[in-house]
Amino acid sequence: MQCNHTIHKHQHHFGWDNRLDPVLSIKPGQTVEIETIDASCGQLGPGASLLDLERLDFDKVNPVTGPIHVEGAEPGDAVAVTFLDFKPSGWGWTANIPGFGLLADQFPDPALHIWMYDAVSMAPALYGPGGKVPMKPFAGTVGLAPVEPGAHSIVPPRRVGGNFDIRDNCVGTTLYLPVEVAGGLLSLGDTHAAQGDGEICGTAIESPMVVSVKIDIIKDARLPFPRFETNGPVTRHFDAKGYKVTTGIGPDLMRAARDAVSGMIDWLCATTQMTPVDAYMLCSVCGDLRISEIVDMPNWTVSFYFPKIVLD
Amino acid sequence: MQCNHTIHKHQHHFGWDNRLDPVLSIKPGQTVEIETIDASCGQLGPGASLLDLERLDFDKVNPVTGPIHVEGAEPGDAVAVTFLDFKPSGWGWTANIPGFGLLADQFPDPALHIWMYDAVSMAPALYGPGGKVPMKPFAGTVGLAPVEPGAHSIVPPRRVGGNFDIRDNCVGTTLYLPVEVAGGLLSLGDTHAAQGDGEICGTAIESPMVVSVKIDIIKDARLPFPRFETNGPVTRHFDAKGYKVTTGIGPDLMRAARDAVSGMIDWLCATTQMTPVDAYMLCSVCGDLRISEIVDMPNWTVSFYFPKIVLD
Repeated sequence: MQCNHTIHKHQHHFGWDNRLDPVLSIKPGQTVEIETIDASCGQLGPGASLLDLERLDFDKVNPVTGPIHVEGAEPGDAVAVTFLDFKPSGWGWTANIPGFGLLADQFPDPALHIWMYDAVSMAPALYGPGGKVPMKPFAGTVGLAPVEPGAHSIVPPRRVGGNFDIRDNCVGTTLYLPVEVAGGLLSLGDTHAAQGDGEICGTAIESPMVVSVKIDIIKDARLPFPRFETNGPVTRHFDAKGYKVTTGIGPDLMRAARDAVSGMIDWLCATTQMTPVDAYMLCSVCGDLRISEIVDMPNWTVSFYFPKIVLD
Repeated sequence: MQCNHTIHKHQHHFGWDNRLDPVLSIKPGQTVEIETIDASCGQLGPGASLLDLERLDFDKVNPVTGPIHVEGAEPGDAVAVTFLDFKPSGWGWTANIPGFGLLADQFPDPALHIWMYDAVSMAPALYGPGGKVPMKPFAGTVGLAPVEPGAHSIVPPRRVGGNFDIRDNCVGTTLYLPVEVAGGLLSLGDTHAAQGDGEICGTAIESPMVVSVKIDIIKDARLPFPRFETNGPVTRHFDAKGYKVTTGIGPDLMRAARDAVSGMIDWLCATTQMTPVDAYMLCSVCGDLRISEIVDMPNWTVSFYFPKIVLD
């Protein structure tokens, strides 16, 4: 498709800061084609090794392209981002990065998997240790500049969005972000070829892409947090064969989530040839964390859904 | 279908206690037809009023039918329950019960909605305040007796299962429960005609049904928590038109879940004629709580998915 504007991938930044100069100023209703870099900022490529992962410079992770100044956006408004198209690159990486991830204490050693996928057919990508993963490209990080002065880490998401890794920010979805500063200052990156809800090992199929979006303003939306709207089903790429599901039950949602994921890694290792860390990384790119009940005091139930189609 | 055994609904109990006498003893591989009572134990019927809700005797909530002694089940084994059939009654109730539910502090007043649905066609059920809800019957409470001596509340689920309100314990699913006492002592009840993941107001479409199950034993399964396996997709009754989604972002999953649900109630009230409590109860029977990311330290993202088909 032909967009009104293009931003190249060298126009990126590494944190949120409302003093950053916009790389582009647009009118509401315009479209922008945005090149992104992978979450390692090119430190890991299609030929990367474990050594490259061990040498990763964390000052250069999760670059986002932008910021884009949206004319007329004022605090209290929402910037609406409609995802029109993703042009995937055909490769990606998934890693267990020591100290990062839901089960970081159980997986202290680095691990890396390089994925090659067909960027035209977008057929399920083979996972060397076993299985194949359906693709669904999306942008993991989409955010506006926070009003708080200074430089802020890119890692945590905030009420203005950011690195929230919402799997359904894919083609057809419109995302609404609360504006805190004039012009909004939109940036995006951290594109993923596939991910499960939770992104449990801390990385998805990290894959550079070109993203096309349409940008609008909703005046005086007064959103407390981001919202979005999908234009169709969200899990049909995963669900056709059903799921294996493990649970965690107890008074702490985080603990219950950890128990559910640990249970699935045990189940996969008992029924396939996978090592625990390979199962952990596979769960991150295709398994979904859901809260089954959050009301039966004092114990909540968190469930981890692993799509059977992946091992079919 | 014709089962090997039938248990009538008067054969119920109100808590978990491994001293309870079994109402039936079966061999692994046999089938049982189980009549259930609704979660009010008949205190609320198709003609119930708010006054009936206010008079609810909490010593008589969430009855479960059973227990069933499964011959040969020993601690360390798993009892496998395959859900074969649900015969719905055609009516149900949803309530906001003061002190109970994810947003109990925001909704202090009792509210009750009576649903009538077609038990043959199982067409989406009309919700008086607005919308119609696709049906998917399941058993909210399915559990074994815990090894800990004495009587235990039916409200919280435990590692032996119980009131975990997992929406996908529906026809075609096989549930695996860890056995803690000889014979397992299986009971079930709390049948729901529809529910979203989370059961956020604390009640679903509470509806008495007759449930047919097949019961097996997996020897020496050594499960830390319950597991289950579905035989197909789990959300296609909801997903055809896509979703409206609200988020909560922050360092506490419970707070993030509350923010996500509050955001959806605001969104529904701003775009329909519904009152907040009507929106809250509707969200409980069809909206899903998902953990979008649980790794981007220190802020996690919980999303609440409301199916657009309900208001279509």
